Amino acid sequence: MIGDPLPSEKLEGQLLPKHLALPIFASDALSSVAYAPQELLMILLLGGLAFLSFAPWVALAVIVLLVTVVASYRQLVKAYPSGGGDYEVAHKNLGEKAGLVVASALLVDYVLTVAVSVASGVDNIISALPFLSEFRVEIAVGFVIIIAAVNLRGVRESSKAFAIPTYIFIGSIFLMVVTGLIQTFLGHPPVAESAAYGVQAASLTQAATILLLLRAFSSGCSALTGVEAVANGVPAFRTPKIKNARRTLGMMGGIAIVLFAGLTAVALISGVHYAENPCDLQGWAQCATEPQRSLIAQIASATFGNNSLLFFVVQAATAVVLLLAANTAFNGFPLLGSVLAKDSYAPKSLNTRGDRLVYSNGMILLALAATVLLVVYQANLTQLIQLYIIGVFVSFTLGQTGMVKHWITLLRNGTTERGSVIRSLSINAFGALLTLVVLIVVTITKFTHGAYLVFIFMPILFTLMLGVNRYYRDVEKEVEVDPVTTFGSNGDHAIVLIGKMQKPGLKALDYAIAARHDSIEAVHVSIDDDATAKLQHQWIEQNIHVPLTIIESPYRDFGVPLIKYLKHRREEHGSEVVTVYLPQYIVGHWWENMLHNHRARRIRQQLMLCHGVTVALVPWLLDSSSLIYGRRSRPLPGQDRRGEPVRPIARRPLEPASAGARRTGMTAAAAESAAAKSAANAAAKTSAAAAKKSAAAAKSGGTPTAAAKQQKSKQPARAKR
Amino acid sequence: MIGDPLPSEKLEGQLLPKHLALPIFASDALSSVAYAPQELLMILLLGGLAFLSFAPWVALAVIVLLVTVVASYRQLVKAYPSGGGDYEVAHKNLGEKAGLVVASALLVDYVLTVAVSVASGVDNIISALPFLSEFRVEIAVGFVIIIAAVNLRGVRESSKAFAIPTYIFIGSIFLMVVTGLIQTFLGHPPVAESAAYGVQAASLTQAATILLLLRAFSSGCSALTGVEAVANGVPAFRTPKIKNARRTLGMMGGIAIVLFAGLTAVALISGVHYAENPCDLQGWAQCATEPQRSLIAQIASATFGNNSLLFFVVQAATAVVLLLAANTAFNGFPLLGSVLAKDSYAPKSLNTRGDRLVYSNGMILLALAATVLLVVYQANLTQLIQLYIIGVFVSFTLGQTGMVKHWITLLRNGTTERGSVIRSLSINAFGALLTLVVLIVVTITKFTHGAYLVFIFMPILFTLMLGVNRYYRDVEKEVEVDPVTTFGSNGDHAIVLIGKMQKPGLKALDYAIAARHDSIEAVHVSIDDDATAKLQHQWIEQNIHVPLTIIESPYRDFGVPLIKYLKHRREEHGSEVVTVYLPQYIVGHWWENMLHNHRARRIRQQLMLCHGVTVALVPWLLDSSSLIYGRRSRPLPGQDRRGEPVRPIARRPLEPASAGARRTGMTAAAAESAAAKSAANAAAKTSAAAAKKSAAAAKSGGTPTAAAKQQKSKQPARAKR
Repeated sequence: MIGDPLPSEKLEGQLLPKHLALPIFASDALSSVAYAPQELLMILLLGGLAFLSFAPWVALAVIVLLVTVVASYRQLVKAYPSGGGDYEVAHKNLGEKAGLVVASALLVDYVLTVAVSVASGVDNIISALPFLSEFRVEIAVGFVIIIAAVNLRGVRESSKAFAIPTYIFIGSIFLMVVTGLIQTFLGHPPVAESAAYGVQAASLTQAATILLLLRAFSSGCSALTGVEAVANGVPAFRTPKIKNARRTLGMMGGIAIVLFAGLTAVALISGVHYAENPCDLQGWAQCATEPQRSLIAQIASATFGNNSLLFFVVQAATAVVLLLAANTAFNGFPLLGSVLAKDSYAPKSLNTRGDRLVYSNGMILLALAATVLLVVYQANLTQLIQLYIIGVFVSFTLGQTGMVKHWITLLRNGTTERGSVIRSLSINAFGALLTLVVLIVVTITKFTHGAYLVFIFMPILFTLMLGVNRYYRDVEKEVEVDPVTTFGSNGDHAIVLIGKMQKPGLKALDYAIAARHDSIEAVHVSIDDDATAKLQHQWIEQNIHVPLTIIESPYRDFGVPLIKYLKHRREEHGSEVVTVYLPQYIVGHWWENMLHNHRARRIRQQLMLCHGVTVALVPWLLDSSSLIYGRRSRPLPGQDRRGEPVRPIARRPLEPASAGARRTGMTAAAAESAAAKSAANAAAKTSAAAAKKSAAAAKSGGTPTAAAKQQKSKQPARAKR
Repeated sequence: MIGDPLPSEKLEGQLLPKHLALPIFASDALSSVAYAPQELLMILLLGGLAFLSFAPWVALAVIVLLVTVVASYRQLVKAYPSGGGDYEVAHKNLGEKAGLVVASALLVDYVLTVAVSVASGVDNIISALPFLSEFRVEIAVGFVIIIAAVNLRGVRESSKAFAIPTYIFIGSIFLMVVTGLIQTFLGHPPVAESAAYGVQAASLTQAATILLLLRAFSSGCSALTGVEAVANGVPAFRTPKIKNARRTLGMMGGIAIVLFAGLTAVALISGVHYAENPCDLQGWAQCATEPQRSLIAQIASATFGNNSLLFFVVQAATAVVLLLAANTAFNGFPLLGSVLAKDSYAPKSLNTRGDRLVYSNGMILLALAATVLLVVYQANLTQLIQLYIIGVFVSFTLGQTGMVKHWITLLRNGTTERGSVIRSLSINAFGALLTLVVLIVVTITKFTHGAYLVFIFMPILFTLMLGVNRYYRDVEKEVEVDPVTTFGSNGDHAIVLIGKMQKPGLKALDYAIAARHDSIEAVHVSIDDDATAKLQHQWIEQNIHVPLTIIESPYRDFGVPLIKYLKHRREEHGSEVVTVYLPQYIVGHWWENMLHNHRARRIRQQLMLCHGVTVALVPWLLDSSSLIYGRRSRPLPGQDRRGEPVRPIARRPLEPASAGARRTGMTAAAAESAAAKSAANAAAKTSAAAAKKSAAAAKSGGTPTAAAKQQKSKQPARAKR
């Protein structure tokens, strides 16, 4: 019925080889070079064309930062290979609060990753197909819906369809940069379409100039987003996990630097002039009607020729990689959720393996939040980027600080590899310092441009997570075992709820008899006199020796009369354990659930509030339920990043023979033995004479209702004709 | 814990007195006079001003029809006082298919009642406050959302807040008509603001003229919508139910005729010219910018003075009554749903009393459908009315035809009251004939104007209902008792799933022991070695004699390893009944459900697919669950119309003493007796030596895991230190 357990070699085979790990974990980080140089140059241009001379230096600062952060993460991976990333590091070394700050920063960041990546992706699509310009928001929201739907359905991130676009993106951008540089070397450098447009030079004070440079740097720092993904995904790598993860990190950093530096250089060479407000570009008449093309599109057009095949390849690859980056948020989110759930900061259900339903709600929330951002900001990349990277740098800074603490503790406890630890310590300390400075710069330069929103939502998430944790702690205390609490009771009674004379009810009855409770009775809640009379007649006809109690329900309700009856019993018999047997239909189609079990569910919920009641659900598998066995399992979001393949239930269809056996139950021999047991059971206790007498009375023309109501014998014994 | 049962006098007191029944059941029918005369005159004006001379005759035809339909329903109420209305009559007399046609017509009609009433209500609000004109659709959708929200939350329809507006509406419209007639009598008749506007006279052929008159008649017939409501609500009336319902029907008919005739007359006197396209009115310059005021607003303005207090009273009362009419659909819908469910044409859950959740989905669906209509048709009353009344007349015609069949059957079977039956027969036969003719007229005149949509949705609903019925029939057959099927099995084993050493698990364990299964074991699925070791240590420390089995779960899943274990057991022990005890948290806040029971639910669902497994849910009431007892019950939608007050669970707060008693369980005496029983149980079966030995081994320094795994003794016996 369930698949064989995976032998460990097979498990290893399901882990990610490096050539798949790179595109999966790097798409987020690499895709950010699609917007980082553009936003960097755009801010510089606010000061005028002369400010472009600062561009190489600002870009260099970004690259230094990128190198530092990558080096820092290479230390982190070594020390914490479990995949918790910055959250785990901050939580373990700096305490709960720091961990939750990182967690809330990351949660906000997932939403922004989706919004920014999709907005940039749409920008690049519109740059290739300008007639789509008026549908910018609609296309962006459409992509979010598609990505969410794909993830809700379940898709393997480790498939080639996810890996190839990233390689094409790397290859085509690299080719473009090299082409541009060769053309420059050969003396006919590429000329961007916006090269001729002028920009009004602003007359800035020295302080304003510095602020503008810092803003440009902040925007360029968006190139760093997504670098942390590898650190969260170490368990998904093949052994040697740490070495492979570190190597992938290094490779990713190298590629990112080459692409970022290359794009910035060729943009400067070809004279791309990109403005926040297109109509600030002097000499461009169609600024109000035509969309401003993305930096990548302008470079591709200048190097490969406008609307050439390679131009479209670059644009398509860029758009797809950006959408893949948005997709990573849908995978990273459940991963973080499960880590938080393990530490009791999020609903524990988020750590329940294989429960698709649990992830669905989170993904719908993520998609909704991103959609709201895209609609509110009209899918405007420049505005959305203002909110981004605050969270990234909060998590960088606290993560690196946690690492510093970690190394110091190691040193204090006297480690064997002092040299290596000191090296790691200095790298992380430098990283922590640098990212802290950047965090302050980013906050100052972006706060009034929209980033204040991040400082509203992060505390809300922080408080929620802390509240969940305190709630779980209180419950834990409430259910703690103490020496005075005892359960159990003086009596054990079984009630089998019978609606009509049908197999599910009889199965429940037989199961109840098999459990040999002290006493047993069948209970029927009467909402229709005719149906009740029919049941009583059948009860006698079938010669069932378990007494059938009828409860009147004048208001056609089931739960309330039943609870009244139980309460009454309790007054008479004291604190006994009452097990109520409810048949439950198991179905194969989703829509069948709408047609079954609602009443049973409601009765169950009402009964669960009663003293000493246990509800025993006896499943009845309808024919359609066999469909469940044939159902293919679908991958869960974040599964590939977690590095632990889920073994789904029911991979292979059930053999028809055994399915049949479940339905008609036991063989003749088994039936005989069961009957014998039942009889022995009867003999050992009181006799079933009373029940038989009343049954006889009913048969000989007495009122069946009264007869059945008299059947209060304590003796269960049911035999088929 | 639950309220006392209602004595029957008290039940009678909760039924509707006539002065409340009239407004509740009549608001739908009476509100339709707010739009019927307007739509009637509007269609006539398509032919030119001269066509207004036909108006009295067309109105008279509508009134004749109204009288006929009311008379017909007075017969129906007499014969079918159970509240099933046209559906029940058609189903019983004309068969399943006819019943389902009526049902699907009514379902479509509920959606249109909401859409048309809200559109007309908004029209009258805008007539009083023209500056709201540009928000027409937004206001309409807003009202649908408010009405749905109020009903989802639960509100008593029989409250005075629902009755007073209807009376104010009747009174103010009546006053307006009388004022208008007196002014005419005194020689200075009211003059509507649109009286001076001309209309282009169309040159029509004789056939086209007749078609136009028929169309005007069709539109006027919208005055008949809602008349059937009383017939569906007979059980809600006080005794003598039938007499009271018939009298209310008569009163409603009388009022409707007076208002309809009066409004039409005063509209003609004051010269209201209302056009489908406002700019067809010659002489009105602002036709494109200003909203065309409703017929009622124009008359109120002409008789009481524009923007006078009484003008606003009329507009407000009209708007509120129209919104109340929309509200009736939200109450009538669950009523029809429960009737259909009783006959197995709709999910049976719709017939589950007191289950709010069941109604919620239906109401959300209803609100969504109405919203879509309002948005698509931009809340345009004239266009929405094209779709309306087809359903009404389908149900009228089939209902009356069913009544004819009913009377004929009575006559054939030889009734005592031949005279009365023959009178009823002739009334219903005339009604059936007339409504059939009108149905044909309405279909012909409205089909191409949008009514074709009704002919698409009705068959869809019809098919769905038939499909549900066939599905239930198949299941019924599947679970039918037959002489060969037996259940039960040769063995009875209990498994208590233990996560941590906490009270809920121990309670489940004690309950399992109380049930005295053949054998019992505690099972722990290990996903964390440390936690498992801790549990094993505590198990021995607490001296629990039930063996604890550890199941390894390399993939951190719970269900799959457990199922594997059960399957393995089954291979060893044959077909036994296995009861798996799962603790379940009962909570008081809705959000707590997000934090609990997800894993238990998933395990339950997976276990229910296994052979011979019963899942026993042992409730653990968290402190917050006491909130449930204090919770006030809220009325269910359609409750007042059904005439059966629901007796909700838990009206009064639980006494603290008994709540405490539930938690800490039994007295010392009870505990002793339970221990004695347990001991006796042990003595009667095999000895617990094996378990004790392994426990000792573990205590004396052996590996606890191995020791616990060895504890496979069949003997359950748990005792607290």
